Amino acid sequence: MAPMTTRRAIVRIQQGRPARGPDDLAVESPLLIALDGEPLATLMRTPGHDIELTAGWLVVESGARTPDDVTRLRACWEDETDRMHVTLAEGVRQPRPRAFVTSSACGVCSADILDMSALRSGTPRSPSWTVDFDTLVALPDAMRPRQRAFARTGGLHAAGLATAAGDMLVVREDVGRHNAVDKIVGRALLDGQLPATDLLLVVSGRVSFEIVQKALAAGVAGIVAISAPSSLAVDLCRDNGLLLAGLVRDGRANLYAGAELVVGHARPS
Amino acid sequence: MAPMTTRRAIVRIQQGRPARGPDDLAVESPLLIALDGEPLATLMRTPGHDIELTAGWLVVESGARTPDDVTRLRACWEDETDRMHVTLAEGVRQPRPRAFVTSSACGVCSADILDMSALRSGTPRSPSWTVDFDTLVALPDAMRPRQRAFARTGGLHAAGLATAAGDMLVVREDVGRHNAVDKIVGRALLDGQLPATDLLLVVSGRVSFEIVQKALAAGVAGIVAISAPSSLAVDLCRDNGLLLAGLVRDGRANLYAGAELVVGHARPS
Repeated sequence: MAPMTTRRAIVRIQQGRPARGPDDLAVESPLLIALDGEPLATLMRTPGHDIELTAGWLVVESGARTPDDVTRLRACWEDETDRMHVTLAEGVRQPRPRAFVTSSACGVCSADILDMSALRSGTPRSPSWTVDFDTLVALPDAMRPRQRAFARTGGLHAAGLATAAGDMLVVREDVGRHNAVDKIVGRALLDGQLPATDLLLVVSGRVSFEIVQKALAAGVAGIVAISAPSSLAVDLCRDNGLLLAGLVRDGRANLYAGAELVVGHARPS
Repeated sequence: MAPMTTRRAIVRIQQGRPARGPDDLAVESPLLIALDGEPLATLMRTPGHDIELTAGWLVVESGARTPDDVTRLRACWEDETDRMHVTLAEGVRQPRPRAFVTSSACGVCSADILDMSALRSGTPRSPSWTVDFDTLVALPDAMRPRQRAFARTGGLHAAGLATAAGDMLVVREDVGRHNAVDKIVGRALLDGQLPATDLLLVVSGRVSFEIVQKALAAGVAGIVAISAPSSLAVDLCRDNGLLLAGLVRDGRANLYAGAELVVGHARPS
């Protein structure tokens, strides 16, 4: 597997004193995704878990939900370009450009973007599902020892999938916060674990529209974030019944959506 | 102008005690960019400075470099969808999909992506250009008082354009770190200030491939970042002669590229 970090000689200046020395950096490099042999997209990512990354990316972009939906997923590092060859099962929606729309016939407008009904995977949780507050606030700390590349570089995001009992099932890192989530969702897809009902998506970064989109596609019960969410992320979580906890640090948390799902503390005043 | 922040009632839990109250959030909402009347792209952004955002986005995506390259840039908030209508001057390259490639004829591969020669705006600096170390490390602090939406929400990135004398010319905020840079570059385009020779791009977030791409298109002398760069960002800055300072905090800085352009401290040991 290609390394996630690499080393460069840099000049480090502390208290006015410069020193030349090696520095560990998060690797960022392009991964070309080819569908049926045709180039489809290029992801700038941290190498490692490329198959999971591609699988997770397909969950939102194509609607793949089971391992059988992806009939081929083969990495190829010929001629110095990292490539991932993908074939989807018949009947699975083909990925189509979202960031750019090539003609008005595609009809992407704000309303389409914000309609999450097609994306949603099953029900996000069992009827009696709750999470204890102490368990919730401990999730970022449970993720940190497994952020090995971050510890060396300070330059990667992390995502994890955890149970409501606080067990951290899997942690992945990437320079891109979307990619880290894709790697998590891809692992669940390949394991036949989608929808990830009753599980929590833990993220190191901010929660924007796209992170909620991925959480909905994965079918998790909620999102626990170390950073802050956007207005749209809050509204989408509320509309879709997801728990959203943000700024989860030092025993504190803001509950932006689904506050009634968090138990083990006094009722709100 | 649409507000950059909005308020939601949330539950805040500190030291085990929950309290219900209002919380300020960074607004995230879609902006549809239409080229010659046809939908082209949807950017998820924080409202405000939409014209600058669109102009800056076009600098990388279309190669626009002067105010005359963009013949029309008109905001339209009809039927609840924020739209920006764009017309480019004859001869200006039309934006084409980069994230997705629609056919192999487009030929996007890693080599194309990493070839920055077409993107580069002029020479990045005067032959004798340098920046004083004390000025450089003070730039994030100079940006902070103007990060008004961040101060309220903790959920936005910022970008600024500064002189080597430490004057902060313009600061912009957005939920997306790319958008914040686009707003800065767009302001410079509209003012006829591209290439932004001898100026420094200051960013709050991490420095990835795309941030360097935008810096090169803007023609700045270098990038000063509060967070860490990726390996690719370091290599691209070195290949293209840009200064790159990262982890600039508390009087400390790492010089990843162009260390010889920073003066006013003892020579590296």
